[in-house]
Amino acid sequence: MTKSALQIERAHYVPKMPTALRGAVKAVDGEYTESVANQEEIKKLFPNTYGMPVVTFEKSNEKKAMPPINVGVILSGGQAPGGHNVIAGLFDGLKSGNKDSRLYGFILGPGGLIEHKYMELTAGIIDEYRNTGGFDMIGSGRTKLEQKEQFDKGLEILKKLNIKALVIIGGDDSNTNACVLAEYYKSIGAGVQVIGCPKTIDGDLKNEQVETSFGFDTACKVYSEVIGNIQRDCNSARKYWHFIKLMGRSASHIALECALQTHPNVCIISEEVEAKNQTLDDIVNQIATVVLKRSEAGNNFGTVLIPEGLVEFIPAMKRLIAELNDFLAKHETEFKMIKKSEQRSYIIAKLTKENSELYASLPEGVARQLTLERDPHGNVQVSLIETEKLLAEMVGNRLAEWKAEGKYTGKFATQMHFFGYEGRCAAPSNYDADYCYSLGYAAACLIHAGKTGYMSSVRNTTAPADKWIAGGIPVTMMMNMERRHGEMKPVIQKALVKLEGAPFKAYAARREEWALSTDYVYPGPIQYFGPSSVCDEPTKTLQLEQQK
Amino acid sequence: MTKSALQIERAHYVPKMPTALRGAVKAVDGEYTESVANQEEIKKLFPNTYGMPVVTFEKSNEKKAMPPINVGVILSGGQAPGGHNVIAGLFDGLKSGNKDSRLYGFILGPGGLIEHKYMELTAGIIDEYRNTGGFDMIGSGRTKLEQKEQFDKGLEILKKLNIKALVIIGGDDSNTNACVLAEYYKSIGAGVQVIGCPKTIDGDLKNEQVETSFGFDTACKVYSEVIGNIQRDCNSARKYWHFIKLMGRSASHIALECALQTHPNVCIISEEVEAKNQTLDDIVNQIATVVLKRSEAGNNFGTVLIPEGLVEFIPAMKRLIAELNDFLAKHETEFKMIKKSEQRSYIIAKLTKENSELYASLPEGVARQLTLERDPHGNVQVSLIETEKLLAEMVGNRLAEWKAEGKYTGKFATQMHFFGYEGRCAAPSNYDADYCYSLGYAAACLIHAGKTGYMSSVRNTTAPADKWIAGGIPVTMMMNMERRHGEMKPVIQKALVKLEGAPFKAYAARREEWALSTDYVYPGPIQYFGPSSVCDEPTKTLQLEQQK
Repeated sequence: MTKSALQIERAHYVPKMPTALRGAVKAVDGEYTESVANQEEIKKLFPNTYGMPVVTFEKSNEKKAMPPINVGVILSGGQAPGGHNVIAGLFDGLKSGNKDSRLYGFILGPGGLIEHKYMELTAGIIDEYRNTGGFDMIGSGRTKLEQKEQFDKGLEILKKLNIKALVIIGGDDSNTNACVLAEYYKSIGAGVQVIGCPKTIDGDLKNEQVETSFGFDTACKVYSEVIGNIQRDCNSARKYWHFIKLMGRSASHIALECALQTHPNVCIISEEVEAKNQTLDDIVNQIATVVLKRSEAGNNFGTVLIPEGLVEFIPAMKRLIAELNDFLAKHETEFKMIKKSEQRSYIIAKLTKENSELYASLPEGVARQLTLERDPHGNVQVSLIETEKLLAEMVGNRLAEWKAEGKYTGKFATQMHFFGYEGRCAAPSNYDADYCYSLGYAAACLIHAGKTGYMSSVRNTTAPADKWIAGGIPVTMMMNMERRHGEMKPVIQKALVKLEGAPFKAYAARREEWALSTDYVYPGPIQYFGPSSVCDEPTKTLQLEQQK
Repeated sequence: MTKSALQIERAHYVPKMPTALRGAVKAVDGEYTESVANQEEIKKLFPNTYGMPVVTFEKSNEKKAMPPINVGVILSGGQAPGGHNVIAGLFDGLKSGNKDSRLYGFILGPGGLIEHKYMELTAGIIDEYRNTGGFDMIGSGRTKLEQKEQFDKGLEILKKLNIKALVIIGGDDSNTNACVLAEYYKSIGAGVQVIGCPKTIDGDLKNEQVETSFGFDTACKVYSEVIGNIQRDCNSARKYWHFIKLMGRSASHIALECALQTHPNVCIISEEVEAKNQTLDDIVNQIATVVLKRSEAGNNFGTVLIPEGLVEFIPAMKRLIAELNDFLAKHETEFKMIKKSEQRSYIIAKLTKENSELYASLPEGVARQLTLERDPHGNVQVSLIETEKLLAEMVGNRLAEWKAEGKYTGKFATQMHFFGYEGRCAAPSNYDADYCYSLGYAAACLIHAGKTGYMSSVRNTTAPADKWIAGGIPVTMMMNMERRHGEMKPVIQKALVKLEGAPFKAYAARREEWALSTDYVYPGPIQYFGPSSVCDEPTKTLQLEQQK
C-alpha cells in the first residue's frame, strides 16, 4: 500500500476523547426506558431487550481487571468517513480491558458473518487504518441480517471463534436488525451480546438520543469544499448556472447542511416540497424566478443545490410513478410492441389526466427513463433519474417561454454536477475521527458492562471533546412500528429534515437574501493541522440543533 | 462577503519568496535570445521586441527610489488557482518601489481594456483577496486582444489613467497576444510596457524557460483528492468501475499528474493514443482487458482516468469528425428532412467505408451528439461528447461479447464522473500561493526595470522558495510559427505530454502493476497548516521533470 504524505502524517493523530473514557470506566444505569411509540407492540417483540436503562459512562477510581473477550465487528451498508476509527476505538477499548482480548472483522458486511468470512484484526492491521477513510479494512456489504437461519448460521462461527460480543456499525436498518439479533441471541441463551453504532452520511439516523450519525460531518465538508470551488468559479466566470445534485435519497440533511455552509442561490429541500405539496412545475418556477431576478441585476449565473431523492418527494411525481409502475406491469407485452418513437404518445394517451399532463411536460430523456429503465420488480428506478438535468432543462424551457413573452431577457447556460462518491470515503475530519473513535471505545465499554441490544452513544459533541458524554442507548427506545413492504415492522424512525427545526429555519430565514445577493461562502478543504476554529468546527446543522 | 473559518485564517498567510525579491532588487541582463524556431519570420514580426536578453533578478545593496507608476492588470481566459496572488504580488512589488504607484484592474478580462471598464485596486481590496481562489476580484474573460483597433481603443484608457505598464495574466495565446501588444505599443512609441504571466491549470504552457504555469498544482491536487476518495470507496465497496474524465482539452498533463498521485488502474494519455495511432477500439480493448484480468483475480472494480480532449487525439475519430463536418455542411437540408429514428442508418450509408464502420460502432447517444449538436460554424462540438460514458458503454459491450464467448465471467457496473469546475477556483496550495505571488512581484520588478514583451518567470521551484530564481523571459524566445485557422501565426508552442519525458516514463513503468494490484493512493485534501512534507510538495510532474 503506497501512502500519501498526508496519510503518513495523519496516522499519528490521537483522537480526542471524553474524560469519562480515559482510564477506568464505570457504567451507570439511568432510568428504565420506553420506545418512542407503539410501546406495547415493541415490548412484545423484544421481551428480553425492551425497557432497559440508558447507560452513562463515568470515570472510575478503581481499575477493574476484565476477563479477556473475543469480539466480532461488522461494517454494514454504504461507506461513511470514520468507520475505521470506530474499529480502532473498539480495539483499544477492548485491549484496555484485557490485552488478551481479540477482535475479529467479518468480511464484506453482514454476509461475512453468514458465510463465515473473517479475519483477526491485530494491532498491526489496526494501526494501518487509524484516521483513514473508507471501509476497506474489512469491507462492507448490504446483506440484511433479518432471518433466523442467518442468525443461526452466524452463531456457528461466533461459537467457533469463541466470540461473545458482536458490534454492528450501520444505519437505521442495520441498527434495528442488530437489536433483533440481540433479542434473538438473548432469547436462546447464545451468550453473544450485540451492540450497534450509528453510521450514515445522509444524517437521517438521529433522534433525542443520537445527536448525529458518523460520516455526515466529513461528507458534508467535502461536498461543501467542491460546491464552494464551483461557486467561486461561477462568480468569476459569471456565465453559468450550476445545478448540483447531492447524495441523500430519503432526507435532505446533506443539501441543507451544504447550503448553510456555502450560501447557494437556491437549495431545494425535499421535505418542504412534500409538506407544501409542491409540483415539479412549482419547483421549476421557483428556480426560474430566481434566475429571472438575478438576470435583471445583470447576474446571469448562480448555483442550485438539489437533494438526490427529490423526485420521490414531489407528491404528483409519486402518483405518476405509481400509476406508471402499475400500468406497465399490466401492459408489459403490449408496451414492448410499441415503436420507440411512439412510446411517449402511447403513454400519454393511456394515463389518467393529471398524470398524463405531467408526463407530457417532462423532457424526453427523463420520460424515457421513467418507462424504460426498470428494476427487476418492474419498478421505475428513481435513483437513475438525473434530477439535475431534468430541472436544468425544464428551467431553460420556462425561461424560453418568458423570453417569448418579453418577461425575461437574460442568458441561461448550465453546468451539471452530482456529488456522492467523492465524500463517502474521505479521510474523517477531526470531528468524525474523534466521534468515531469514542463510539468504538464506548462500544467496548458496553461490552465490558455486559450490555446487549444497545447502541453506542456519544453526546454533547458541540462542546470540547473532554466534555462529551459517552454511554449506551437501548435500541428499542428509538423504535416505532412502520409499514415496510406491506407489513408492520419495528424500526428506528428515519430522521427527515424538520421544517420547524433550527437548521431549516436558519436557511429559510436567509434564502431570499442568498438568492439575489451572491453571498457565496468558500469553506475550502478539510484541514487537519491548523487552528481549532478551522479544524474542529462541527456541522452547522449540529450547532444549530444544540443551540438552546 | 461572508467568510469561512479557513478563509479568515488563510488570509494571514505570507507567501514564501525568492531571496532576490526580498528587499532591493537588481535586474541583470543575460545573453541575447533567439526564438525556438522560425527565427527569421519572428524577428520580422517583432522588430522591437525580438532577441532581448533573459533577465535575472538579484539582491541589490542599494535601494533605488522608483518614480511612482500607474499599472493595469488583466486576467485572461479560464480561471486558475492563484490569480489573486499574482495581483497581490504585483501590488506589493509596485508599492515597494514607490508607495504612490497605483494599480488598476480591467474588468472581466481583455474586454475591460477595450470597453474601458476598470477599477482601482487599493490595499483594502487586495487584502480581501490574498491567498484566495477564483478570479472574482476583477473577473476574467475570453476576448482575444489581436487587432489594431482593440490596441488603439485600449491605449485611450491607458493614457487617460496614465498607465505606463500592463500586466496580462493568461495562457499561451494570451501571452502571445501580450507580446504582439508590447510590440505594437513599442512600435508607435505609446510608452506602455506589457508583461505576461503564465497561467493555465492544463499545464500546457511550459518550456525550457517556464517550468510550470500556475494553477496546475492546486487543480491537480483537488482532482487527486476526489479521485483518491472515489478510489477508497471503490476499494471498500468492490463493485464499481469508476470512469473519471478530467479537464484538459489539448494536453493530458492533468490526467498524467493525477495518475502519478493516485495510481489508478487505467489512465489514458491522449498524446500516446495519437503517437501510436490507436483506434477507439484499441482503447476499449485495452480497458476491457484490464477489467477482465482484474475480474479473474476476483476484483470486479477499478478506476479509469480519461483526459477531456481524448476524442480529438484518436486519429480515426478525427477523420470521422472531419468527414461528418464536411458531409453535413454539404447536405444540411437533406439531413434535416430525415426522420430522427432513421438518421443513424442514413449517415452510415453515406460515409466512406472506414468512417462508416467506426460511426456504426459508436453507442447511440454519442452518434447522435456527433450529428446533432453542432456549433454555429456547423462543426461537431467535441467538448460536449461525454467520453467517460462513451468508453464505459463500449467497454461494457466488449465485455458482453467476451462473456458470450466464455472469455469473461466477471461483473461490470459503472459510475461516471467529470472533474473540471471543482478545481479551477480552489484556494491556491502553498506552492501556487507562493509561485503566483513571486510571479506578480517579479512582474513589478520587470516594470521597474523598464522591460516590455517579457513574461514574468520564477524557476527552480522544486527547491525551497528562498532558492527560487526570479526574472523575465522575452516572449519571442518561446515562439514559433504555426498554422492557426488557415494562416501562419507566431505562437508560443503548446506543451503536450512528451512520451520520452520523465513524468510519462514514470507512469509507463508502473502502469501494468497499478492495473492489477490495486495500489490506490489517497492524497487527501490540500493542507495549509501542517508539516512541510504535506503542505509544500510540488506536483509529481514537476519533481520528475526537475530530477536530473
